[in-house]
Order: sequence, then C-alpha cells, then structure tokens
Amino acid sequence: MSASRITILDLQPSIDCGRYPAKACVGDRVEVSALVVRDGHEVLRATIRVTAPDGTAREEPLRPVRGDVFAGSFAADTVGRYAFTVVAWVDRHAGWLAEHDRKLDAGQEDMSGELAEGEALFGPGSIAEWRERAAALADRERSGAVASDVREVDTERVRAREGAWYELFPRSWGGLAGMAKVVPELAALGFDVVYLPPIHPIGRTNRKGANNAPSAGPGEPGSPWAIGAAEGGHDAIHPELGTTDDLRRLVAVAAEHGVELALDLAIQMSPDHPWLAAHPEWFQRRPDGTLKYAENPPKRYQDIHNVDWETPEREALWEALRDVVVHWCELGIRIYRVDNPHTKPLPFWEWLIAEVRALFPDTIFLSEAFTRPAMMTTLGKVGFSQSYTYFTWKNSKVELVELVEQLRSWRLCLRPNLWPNTPDILHATLVGGGRPAFESRLVLAATLSPSYGIYSGYEACENVPLREGSEEYLDSEKYQLKERTLDGPLLPLVKRLNEIRRARPALREGKGVRWLETLDDGLLAYALGTGLDAVLVVVNIDPTTRRTGVCEIPVDLGLAASFTVHDELSGLDWRWSRGHNYVSLEPGRSHVLTVVPE
Amino acid sequence: MSASRITILDLQPSIDCGRYPAKACVGDRVEVSALVVRDGHEVLRATIRVTAPDGTAREEPLRPVRGDVFAGSFAADTVGRYAFTVVAWVDRHAGWLAEHDRKLDAGQEDMSGELAEGEALFGPGSIAEWRERAAALADRERSGAVASDVREVDTERVRAREGAWYELFPRSWGGLAGMAKVVPELAALGFDVVYLPPIHPIGRTNRKGANNAPSAGPGEPGSPWAIGAAEGGHDAIHPELGTTDDLRRLVAVAAEHGVELALDLAIQMSPDHPWLAAHPEWFQRRPDGTLKYAENPPKRYQDIHNVDWETPEREALWEALRDVVVHWCELGIRIYRVDNPHTKPLPFWEWLIAEVRALFPDTIFLSEAFTRPAMMTTLGKVGFSQSYTYFTWKNSKVELVELVEQLRSWRLCLRPNLWPNTPDILHATLVGGGRPAFESRLVLAATLSPSYGIYSGYEACENVPLREGSEEYLDSEKYQLKERTLDGPLLPLVKRLNEIRRARPALREGKGVRWLETLDDGLLAYALGTGLDAVLVVVNIDPTTRRTGVCEIPVDLGLAASFTVHDELSGLDWRWSRGHNYVSLEPGRSHVLTVVPE
Repeated sequence: MSASRITILDLQPSIDCGRYPAKACVGDRVEVSALVVRDGHEVLRATIRVTAPDGTAREEPLRPVRGDVFAGSFAADTVGRYAFTVVAWVDRHAGWLAEHDRKLDAGQEDMSGELAEGEALFGPGSIAEWRERAAALADRERSGAVASDVREVDTERVRAREGAWYELFPRSWGGLAGMAKVVPELAALGFDVVYLPPIHPIGRTNRKGANNAPSAGPGEPGSPWAIGAAEGGHDAIHPELGTTDDLRRLVAVAAEHGVELALDLAIQMSPDHPWLAAHPEWFQRRPDGTLKYAENPPKRYQDIHNVDWETPEREALWEALRDVVVHWCELGIRIYRVDNPHTKPLPFWEWLIAEVRALFPDTIFLSEAFTRPAMMTTLGKVGFSQSYTYFTWKNSKVELVELVEQLRSWRLCLRPNLWPNTPDILHATLVGGGRPAFESRLVLAATLSPSYGIYSGYEACENVPLREGSEEYLDSEKYQLKERTLDGPLLPLVKRLNEIRRARPALREGKGVRWLETLDDGLLAYALGTGLDAVLVVVNIDPTTRRTGVCEIPVDLGLAASFTVHDELSGLDWRWSRGHNYVSLEPGRSHVLTVVPE
Repeated sequence: MSASRITILDLQPSIDCGRYPAKACVGDRVEVSALVVRDGHEVLRATIRVTAPDGTAREEPLRPVRGDVFAGSFAADTVGRYAFTVVAWVDRHAGWLAEHDRKLDAGQEDMSGELAEGEALFGPGSIAEWRERAAALADRERSGAVASDVREVDTERVRAREGAWYELFPRSWGGLAGMAKVVPELAALGFDVVYLPPIHPIGRTNRKGANNAPSAGPGEPGSPWAIGAAEGGHDAIHPELGTTDDLRRLVAVAAEHGVELALDLAIQMSPDHPWLAAHPEWFQRRPDGTLKYAENPPKRYQDIHNVDWETPEREALWEALRDVVVHWCELGIRIYRVDNPHTKPLPFWEWLIAEVRALFPDTIFLSEAFTRPAMMTTLGKVGFSQSYTYFTWKNSKVELVELVEQLRSWRLCLRPNLWPNTPDILHATLVGGGRPAFESRLVLAATLSPSYGIYSGYEACENVPLREGSEEYLDSEKYQLKERTLDGPLLPLVKRLNEIRRARPALREGKGVRWLETLDDGLLAYALGTGLDAVLVVVNIDPTTRRTGVCEIPVDLGLAASFTVHDELSGLDWRWSRGHNYVSLEPGRSHVLTVVPE
C-alpha cells in the first residue's frame, strides 16, 4: 500500500538498468531525463540530486520537455564516480493557481470555495501575493516527493576520450634513455600519448627467434610479451632498456613536453617468470605435471603461460596483479594498454579498475579486444576507458560507414581508438596500396574518432609482410632489434592532422559524423559539427586512381547558401554552396575543410 | 571479488528493468532472450528456469542464436504470474572436445597432453565414448553456473486480449430480467462481452436531468455514474434494475450462451452515497466545511464527489474499494471496465488488481483512460488487461496508420480495445458520414485490434448530436430512459465480422498489421498474417465517394504469384496476383479477403 502517487520511469543515462555506470569526461554536461507520471492534474516538479565523487551533494534543475518527460543536465567537472537520482514532487501552490486561472478563464463567477482553499494553502493575501509566494515555494515545499533509483556516471579526464597515440618499441630507440630524445620530437608532431609494449625482462626458455621462429638464436632479444625472467617479472624493467630512474626521468621529460606514457598490461608469463616458482598454484598443469602454455588453436605460444583464473588462490593472484598496476602508477604511469582483456574474467577487470582508480582516479585503460561485440562493449561497461576497434580491417566505403555507425550505437559504453596499423596487423590495403593508402588511412583514423594511433614505421610507409597474405610484418620488431629514427615522409601530414585536431573541437568530441553524398564509392565524405564549427572531410579511399565526384552539403548542416571553405591540408580556399560541390582527388589525397567566417 | 565469470545482460521480456511484469495470454509462448558473455573460448549453455503460478519450477531450453544472444521460450499455459531467470554455465566436456577437434583439424600431431586432460575430465574411454558422455552431461554438469535477475510475466486468459464487446444500459432493456432475453441474441451476433454501465442506486441530490440539465425533473432517472443513494452504494443494485438473484440468473444465462458480463467500476459517489455519512474522512472538504464535488474545469460535476486519496484513512478506503470488486467477483463477474483510472493513484491500481487476482486470478480490467501516453501505458504496466485508445478520434488514413503503429510500439504493456462510439463520444465522422461511416468504422475496429466494441445504437446508425459540434448524443441514455430493441440495419455486418474474427486467428492475435499500398488516400489496406493464413482488408474510409485504387501485394507476404481471394463479406472470389490489384469500393464498403487454398 504505497502512499506515493508519483512514478518515475525510464531514467537516463542508464546502462543495463544501472548495473554499470554511464561514461563522461571532465567538462561534459551529463544529459539526464526521466518520465514522471502521476494521476490527476497536479503541477509536477523535479530535480536531479547529484552526488559528486567527493561526496558533496547538489541539485540541478529538471524541466518538463514533452509528454511527461523531464530533462536537464549536470556538469561532470571532476574525475571520479558521480551518482544521481531524480526527485519529483507536487507543487500544490502552482497547482492551485493553475486551476484558479482555468476557472477564471472558463468564466466561473463564484470562487468563494476556491479562495477559502487558497487561503488555507497560502495564508492571507491577494492572488498576486500568492503568485509570488508560489514562485518562491516551487522548489522548497515538496509534497509527495519521490526519488528514483540511483544511477552512476564514471567521469574520466578528457584523455580517456581524445588523443593521438604513437606506439614504439623502446629497444629500437636506445631504450628509455634514448626515448628521452625522441619523446620531445613526438610531442612536436602533436602526439599526446607514447605507448610502449612491455618493458619487462624477457624469458629465455622457448624464446622466439626472428620472424616468430620456434627458437631464438644467440643474441636474439625475444618478444617483449614473453614477460618475466631471472631479472624479474611484471614489476621489473628489462635491464637493457634502463632502470627505474631512467623511467622516472622519461616520465618527467614527457610531462614537460605535454606527452604521456602508456604501458602495456599483458597478463601472461614466460617460463622463466618468477611467479611460476613462487606461486605454482596460480598456473594450470596438465595431468602429467607439465605446465600448460598459451594456445589459440592452431596457434601455440610455447613462450608464454596464462594464469589459472580458477585457482583457489584467486584473491592473492588478483591482488598481485593489482599491485603490478599500482607499482607503475606510483612511478607516474596513468595509461595502460591492456593486452587481450577478453580472455580474462570480466569480474576481474571490474575489480582491478575500481581498485586502481580508488588510489589513482585518473588512470586510463585501453582495451585491446578484437572480438565479438558483446564482449567488447561489456569491457567498456566494466570500466575500460576506450577500446581498439575493427577499423584496421574496414577499408571500403560500405565497411567504414557500417563501422562508424556501429561505434555510434555503442557510444554509451565504448569509446573508440582507431589504429591503421599495429605490430600485429599490417593490412593488405597498406601492402597493396602503398603510400596513398597510408595517407588516406591516416586521415580517416585522425578524423573519424577522437582517439587514434599509429605504430612506428607507419610514417615511413613500411609495408613488407612476412609472406604474401600475412598480416605479420617481415622482420617484425616483436622478435628482433631494429634501429629506428623519426624521419618518414608522412610526418608533415601527421603533424598537420594533429594541429587541426587540436584546433577543432568537432574532431575531438566524438559526437558522430554526418555522411555526405559523393556520387562515387572511392570518395568518402563526412561532416563533424555544424555551421561555422563544421569540419568537412573528403577522402579518396582508392589508393590507385584519381576519383572525381561531388560533396553534397545538406541544408540542415547550418551553412549559408554559399560559403568559403579552407582546406586545412593544402591551404587552398574554394567557394562552395549547399547542394553539390565538385571534388576530384588524386590517390592518397583528402580535403579537410573548415568554413571561413564571412 | 566475484568468482563468476559469466555475465548475463539484456534479459527479455523485461519492462522497466523488471519493475513491472510483461504480459501474456494462456496458450502463448513467451519468447525469452539474454546476452551471455564470458571471457575465453569455452562452450556456454543456458536454460530458462520458469516458476509457474502454482509454484512448480521447470526448465526450458535456450539456444545460442547470434552474437552471444541465447533465445528460447516457455509456454504460458495457466492464468497467473510466472517468474523466470536465465541460468548459464560452462560445458567443460563440449569445450574440451571442440578444442580437441580444432587441433586435429589444424594438423597437430602430439595430443598426449590433451588426451591426459581428457581422461581426467571424462574418465577412461575413447573419444567416441567421450562424445556420448559429453552429450549426456551437457545440461547436467554446470560449471560456474550463474543466474540472471528474475523477471515476471502476468498471464491472463485469452479474453484479456481478444473479444467483441457490446455496451448497453440495462434500464433501456427491461433491467436485468429483460437483459436475460437480449443476451442470447447478442451471443448469436458473435459478441463475447456485454458491458453494463454502473448498475448501482443513483443519487437524488443534484441529479442531472435530460441532456445533462443541472437538475432533474420528476421521474428522471439520473446518470448511472452518480453512484449511491439511500438504497446503497457500490455493492448494491438499483432496485429498478432488479435484485441480486436477477443478476445471478443473468450471469448464468450469459454463461450458457458463451457471453460474459462486464461491470463498470467508477470510483465516485453521489451526494447520497452511504459512504459520505459513514466515512466522512474519505472525502475532501473545503475550509467552509462543504464537500468538494468533481470538476474538470470548465466542467463541474455537482452530482458526484471524488474520494480524498490523501486521507489518513487510506488503508480502510483502499480495502473498502477492493471489497466492492470482490463482492461482484463473488457474484460471478470477472470483467471490469474502469472509469477514468488515470485520475486515481497508480499504486492503488497496482495494489487493487493484485488483491483481486489473488482471490480471482482470471479477473480482467479494461482501462478507460483517454489521456497522455505515459499514463496510458503505465496503467497497462501496473496490471490493466487492456485499454481504450484514441481510435474514436482517428479517422484519416494518416491518423489510423499513426495510431496503429503507436499501439504496436506499446504492445508489451498495453492491449487495445477499439470503440467507434461510446456513450460519451459521438464523433463528427459518424454525424456527418452516416451509415457508410458507421460501416467502415465498424470494419476497422473489428479488424485492426483483437478487441473491439460498440455502444448500443451503433447498429442503428444513431448519430444525432446534442448540438452541432458536440460529441454528446442528443437525448443521451446517460440521463434518460429509452426503450431499446436489437434490430438495427448493421446487425448482419456485425454478425459476419464476428464470424470472420472467430474463424481467423490472424484477426485475434494482435501481432500487428502490414500496411498495403492503395494509391488512394480514401482506401486503407492492410494484411494480418501471411501465406494461407493471411487476411487482407481494404476499407473505403471516405463515407461520401466511391474510391478506386489498387491493393499491392508485396512479395514477402508469402503468397503465390497468382492466387484466388475470397471476400468474406460479399462472398465473391477474384483472381489476384503479387503487385497491383484493382480495387473499387462504394462508400461504406470493404473487402475482408481470405486466400483460397489451390
């Protein structure tokens, strides 16, 4: 026998009925809405009651918008978890005035009964005085107030959504000390994050040789993902890369230049990892006593072992893994690229991320999950800040549109990070398309998502596969030493794209794109933002042929009938208009157009 | 630190995160689905665990359908509330076999480690024997099993969804005794439910006269909705209508003819209702001590008082209202048409309906709420079996399509009952359109919804309004006595439509319609069902003009390239084909076509 006559339904934002928090970044306004239903004709009011991460509570207004929906927003202005409820109540004073006015309008003459009721409600006074009192009391006297369920919003710093990443193997750049020289150059190119594959000691047992040979020859360094050796495990630095002090210095250099380091978190152990001897109960053995190694049939990874997530020593294992992340956080690392999270339990990630953020709230986690949609989105729900996507494999117009629309449909739980290459994926488009393909894929990655990244060598158009049809690089840096320098021919384009991204919020907000008709399947065109804030991108995605078509400007993009566009890449200006605009692009060429204020 | 690695999300059917039960009718299969997500490559299995209204539990299979979604169904075979959860687990035996087979396929030769693991899992035996054991164990050995939240499904008898209703004022038909003669005639016309406006004693104070005159003259009977007099209140029968025994006899006659009576539940009291004296605390008074009467400015209902839902004696009031319904249930009434439920608290209805159904589980409630969508659908969620709709006011093609699509979007929580007229609503279309409008609106109501109804006089095309532009009838039965007979010219059409409805499940299942192109806005065409079960309806909705167009049969309706249709109304046959078929209909005329098996 509930006394409450107000029902609050369809609270937004809400993920899986509030099982998981929604996502926001500092500076966002979180748009809140709810359906508020009550019998009769009373005037209803509602508010958002927000509890900030520091525990302070405040209220923000909700207004009726249409059909019993109330909407409003609150500012997410600090990192951490916000909680909110919607509170709704009857405004009896406004209700009395509304009924009084309706009766007056309808010509009712005897209002004595109504006025007596009014006096009981408002106290002595005139109608005009009562109106003033009603306005003052609207939010204060809350008759029959009801609160909705609680919903949560995880607010991360903006880097969780937007950034330009560069991945490099520190051993190819003179180790951590050598990196202190290249990091300022990467900063000057406009990169925000420099991501390092695992920097830990590498196992010697079953070490892989060049080009993934089953065993390494003398002097071969092994894969950085075969983590752990006599020198230490996940909390140690490979002696050939440097020392903890070198890392501290590198973090300081990066910070000085406005760049941040990201480390790899790969939960797998070489046969020489100290944990195998110290914690044999964390690993799974065959009935014959041999340790299982990692497999993904037909692939076998004899140089790594996975932990046994079903171990009875689960708590100790989880805590040890958390302590690994905390260790690097204490050294100043706040971004982690997590290797294959979809092969580890979801509850582990939910726990780990919460534990780390309890100590270091601004920690960002990038999910390297190339797997089924349900798992990719659920990883976002349990706390990953952002995720790799299928971008690397989506090259045709139809594929790209489908990908971006899928990402749009996932926007409440998954923030994308687009990579045209990684150490594991050299796509046939880059192999066959050469420099024009590298250029167009770079423009797509940098403009279709607030976060994007390239793996080093991309700027030099490196594209020799291990063998025909393979997505592995020949002489991959994963298994052998290289000496790299930062001097590829695409660096000017990289730098310019990063400059445009920083200058144009529409490229960093992740609010989705508007597809523009081109009348040619080799030309992909889209708009981000509207009016003078719009950025119009046209990319020739055919690396072999000049493509000619149009770029159609629809009427609702908020642009004048005729306007001047400035190509941020070529520096040229053109006069465009609503409707069709002639476009012709050589292979590898794109327009990234902004609108010139008149 | 949850040990469970399986996450179950997006459980369906689910209304407002399980806050309200979904709806079903006896005989339905409830379609259940859920997303089952787990790390790694294990074989996952899932089941629906159903608890029937009698408390017995059973399981029904769930199968993977696509992208981690598991789907299945359970039979709702009895009236009452079902509860279900989805349970998911790892099938370790199937997982071992799948991995074994993948490795064999990949050409792996040394399987000794794998086979040792297999023996530990299965016990001694051959792979073939292990396959048999795995099949037997798939549902029995549930490793890491996880159960979802609980969801509920209210199952009602089929009458909650489908039925042909006829509304009559018993005082116009010789009271309850006289009705015992007309009820068999209504049964012969194919009606399922005969709905009676309130049958209780009518107040004398402020009694309304003919045509809603402020006061009644001598001998005027008053509105049946002004409930309560010296003779009794909501649990009494108006002495001029008959006695409790007359009602018992009428219930028996109706049952004998397969018809059911529906009573009105109007929670409002005339000034002479016994509760006003017995329970003054249930009613709201003005500060001057006078009792408030019902108002909906500018309308004033001086002949009725509403209860005060904010009374401190809430529990006693709610229980008294429940006892009213229980009283009539005990006399054999199981359908209630509830007057204006949107002006009473939602929690009251949720409580009342549950209380009544705890004693009389097969009780059906029809909501007479012509109000905003949020309230109409929430009334369905809190337990109303079905609802009036805006049908009466939707007459053009665009309006009708919009209405039916809105009803489709509400199908999880609101079952429609379409009425072309009621004692309160004589639409201008009927006033201006005459008999052709009555005919076409009847066909629309009877074929666009599993439940429909007419208020008596419709069959005689009664359409004289109180005044021009009014939706009230002149000399309305609400305020004066009439003598009625069942002999209107539309009765043959009514009878035929009810016969077709009974013969054709597609007209009773409420699975939505498929709109068919007609190339004429005066012709509305739609298909219910597909293939040989299809019913094709074409209605001339223009009451003034012959309309000529086509009926386009789309390829996916499951019909042959050429087929014979039988018009169930005219008895004629035509040869139709996929694509355009010529249609020409006089005002008031419709085709209701079935497909003749070849």
